[in-house]
Amino acid sequence: MTPGIDLNSDLGESFGAWRVGDDEAMFAIVSSANVACGYHAGDALTMAESAGRAVRHGVALGAHPGYRDLVGFGRRALDTSPAEIAAELLVQLGALDGVARGAGTRVRYVKAHGALYHRLSADERAAHAFAEAVARYDPTLPVLGPPYSRLERAADAAGLRFAREAFVDRGYVADGSLVPRGEPGAVVDDPAAAADRALELAETGGLTADDGSRVELSPDSLCLHGDTPGAVAMARAVRDALQGAGVEIRSFA
Amino acid sequence: MTPGIDLNSDLGESFGAWRVGDDEAMFAIVSSANVACGYHAGDALTMAESAGRAVRHGVALGAHPGYRDLVGFGRRALDTSPAEIAAELLVQLGALDGVARGAGTRVRYVKAHGALYHRLSADERAAHAFAEAVARYDPTLPVLGPPYSRLERAADAAGLRFAREAFVDRGYVADGSLVPRGEPGAVVDDPAAAADRALELAETGGLTADDGSRVELSPDSLCLHGDTPGAVAMARAVRDALQGAGVEIRSFA
Amino acid sequence: MTPGIDLNSDLGESFGAWRVGDDEAMFAIVSSANVACGYHAGDALTMAESAGRAVRHGVALGAHPGYRDLVGFGRRALDTSPAEIAAELLVQLGALDGVARGAGTRVRYVKAHGALYHRLSADERAAHAFAEAVARYDPTLPVLGPPYSRLERAADAAGLRFAREAFVDRGYVADGSLVPRGEPGAVVDDPAAAADRALELAETGGLTADDGSRVELSPDSLCLHGDTPGAVAMARAVRDALQGAGVEIRSFA
Amino acid sequence: MTPGIDLNSDLGESFGAWRVGDDEAMFAIVSSANVACGYHAGDALTMAESAGRAVRHGVALGAHPGYRDLVGFGRRALDTSPAEIAAELLVQLGALDGVARGAGTRVRYVKAHGALYHRLSADERAAHAFAEAVARYDPTLPVLGPPYSRLERAADAAGLRFAREAFVDRGYVADGSLVPRGEPGAVVDDPAAAADRALELAETGGLTADDGSRVELSPDSLCLHGDTPGAVAMARAVRDALQGAGVEIRSFA
Repeated sequence: MTPGIDLNSDLGESFGAWRVGDDEAMFAIVSSANVACGYHAGDALTMAESAGRAVRHGVALGAHPGYRDLVGFGRRALDTSPAEIAAELLVQLGALDGVARGAGTRVRYVKAHGALYHRLSADERAAHAFAEAVARYDPTLPVLGPPYSRLERAADAAGLRFAREAFVDRGYVADGSLVPRGEPGAVVDDPAAAADRALELAETGGLTADDGSRVELSPDSLCLHGDTPGAVAMARAVRDALQGAGVEIRSFA
Repeated sequence: MTPGIDLNSDLGESFGAWRVGDDEAMFAIVSSANVACGYHAGDALTMAESAGRAVRHGVALGAHPGYRDLVGFGRRALDTSPAEIAAELLVQLGALDGVARGAGTRVRYVKAHGALYHRLSADERAAHAFAEAVARYDPTLPVLGPPYSRLERAADAAGLRFAREAFVDRGYVADGSLVPRGEPGAVVDDPAAAADRALELAETGGLTADDGSRVELSPDSLCLHGDTPGAVAMARAVRDALQGAGVEIRSFA
Repeated sequence: MTPGIDLNSDLGESFGAWRVGDDEAMFAIVSSANVACGYHAGDALTMAESAGRAVRHGVALGAHPGYRDLVGFGRRALDTSPAEIAAELLVQLGALDGVARGAGTRVRYVKAHGALYHRLSADERAAHAFAEAVARYDPTLPVLGPPYSRLERAADAAGLRFAREAFVDRGYVADGSLVPRGEPGAVVDDPAAAADRALELAETGGLTADDGSRVELSPDSLCLHGDTPGAVAMARAVRDALQGAGVEIRSFA
Repeated sequence: MTPGIDLNSDLGESFGAWRVGDDEAMFAIVSSANVACGYHAGDALTMAESAGRAVRHGVALGAHPGYRDLVGFGRRALDTSPAEIAAELLVQLGALDGVARGAGTRVRYVKAHGALYHRLSADERAAHAFAEAVARYDPTLPVLGPPYSRLERAADAAGLRFAREAFVDRGYVADGSLVPRGEPGAVVDDPAAAADRALELAETGGLTADDGSRVELSPDSLCLHGDTPGAVAMARAVRDALQGAGVEIRSFA
């Protein structure tokens, strides 16, 4: 089998008249699109547009649920209960799946957003509530998230497939966590360097951490940012490097 | 076959800490529950609670989409485009269906709410956009709405089953429209009178209009209000009268 | 001077079609009304209605700002920055003051709501951001809040008057904090017992704590709940007991 | 006295993470900034940022209230009552004035946004409700709007000063209305042509309509768009042309 890896990006994050990112360009690059479901971003028309793009570009459509916090873009910690996490997951997943049906496709996987993503990595009760709700919705839907996290364990326990993602433009600490933003080595700006890291991740399953040790991440997917200046250029460099090395870009879903 | 009719009510219209109606009592009376989907009322936990009630009471769960207008409860005319109507229907229908899956059931039909309900009765483009979106979601889902309306025609054109509803507590004009609120005979307050009308509707398919002529409505369902004082008493009177006359209460869906 | 104390209550917490509490009865009892400003509750019409009631009943109108979280009623911890706390206070305070001008009155004080209230008691940076924003709006506006809290210190530092409140229906620990809900003695349900506590607070400035020791609270205001069953009866019992003992009910503002 | 005219633009229309327009550049060009107040755009931090810019650039800060419709950016007709129009104006005006106080300035005038702007031009009851609410807030605040409209008459009746605005980049019909978008001559794209029209308006008080007749507009202010590609270039061309001809740019407020 040809070696391959998935490329995912957070897309469909506009809201009403406010547009962000070059979604048309990014849908042409990635194999999986994490599409906002209305709670932190994404109104009904934007969701419909993203579902249409997923169909046209042959990209796997993923639900990208977050906290109900438009003004904070889902980036602020919010003390929701496990019952709220489960119910809000179902609302968001169902909403995008509804729009997807309208466009002739379906949601193919789930990846949490922002502060919810971070919480699910570490908060066991929250992770179980989330994974169990996904399983009740559709036990064949994979969850995409951080390697070896609480969420991975919760997905396993719920009988869901878990896909691991790594970031091509972020530095890693030896324990597998990200170098915090603001610290040296936190962010990789150079497209060529990001492409090298993508290739290393795809071919070896790991990376060199900031202390020189090796981190095993075994990624099924590489996350590309879609909303920063230079995002499209970096995403293209990563895709080109992988394809040039004979690594197929294909969805994990 | 035993004669029968459906009883429907708008339920699940709480939002967060704000609770309205005696949903537990009403779910025990109706055969179909029109449940708010988050745009005019209904948060994720409330939707989950309603889906759970539908399962426990053996009631058909209906999506009750409205305009995106929490503060106006979806009662104010809002100039949305047909594309918005379609996309917002899919978001709301999908959201409730997602929560329903989490509770072990599914959405069984669709009935529009408030200002959207009124618009779909009369606005041909809006009605077609709505019906076609329902059909793209699931062509076996019936639509519940006003008899012989634009929406009925649009549902027919989209290949959907259309279920007609009549109001037991509202007066009718000879043309089949409701006597406007504020005019004499607009509202029936007396439970016994409402029960008589329900029986007349169930047994004859029509009612006496305000000018003494007969209105044919051929209802598949009778709508009971759930959020007014005395709502539960009137709903029980209607149910008891129908059952006492040998009319089975059963969902059209 | 006649001995006196203020009675305050959280009012104006309806939203759109969702109504809570018997505001008309409570406005007739209290001397200060903490009115929601739109972020956790309170739409424009509700705010206007509350401002009108404050004028009619001669009650001091207080701004009751909370987190921007309608669905959670401002009760959930939300990780806002000090800059957000300051800006959101000014939006909410200004909004209610705008509506108050329309009704011929003005906002007379500020009391935070829910999770923001709790945070300001303990989080020094948040408390300073809040107090300094109040002072920039109007340095003569008092802040109402928990005795001897971070917020009291921040108000002092910002040159604001701070009014201390005590709860007549909650038990106190010896350190001046509340007995956590769910523990024995957390809540006082009996109107007569609450009235006794109100009198003790008004006459002695303190209460007996749950371990039998004495807690000094030096309250300027007693908080009455307005949205629970029996709220109006308890509020009336407290008011009657105070007035019967010659304690005047008057706003601190 | 030196001849002069005001330049106004809709600014502060970002929301949370979604940023629009080059506000920093536009604040350096205009003399009046119509700043969104949270209902159609503009969160608390964005309002605070705009108030700060108004202070730094010596620009008059105007409240720019709209319908409560974030997802539609206040551009969709919404059937609000006169009471809602009044209360929502007070909430928005007060909110921005609150933030302005925090920044050491005050709101200096009011201009409605989007669908509300259009409604107030033609709907007499709505216009009166709006103007009377402004007058109750502060009878010295001018209202900026379309010349000779229902709103102008309502402002007159409420004892408010009314400032007339004209659009430098829109064609006019002989009756003083705008050439509808989509028709020939509706939009002026060329900065030099817009600058010529600005000069004609400033110096003669009128323009040539699309049928060659002359339209008298007597503008106190010229509206510049701030959120389109080329907006800043056109705004600079207008300002430079006016200043080059000895017309002073100064706020009407």
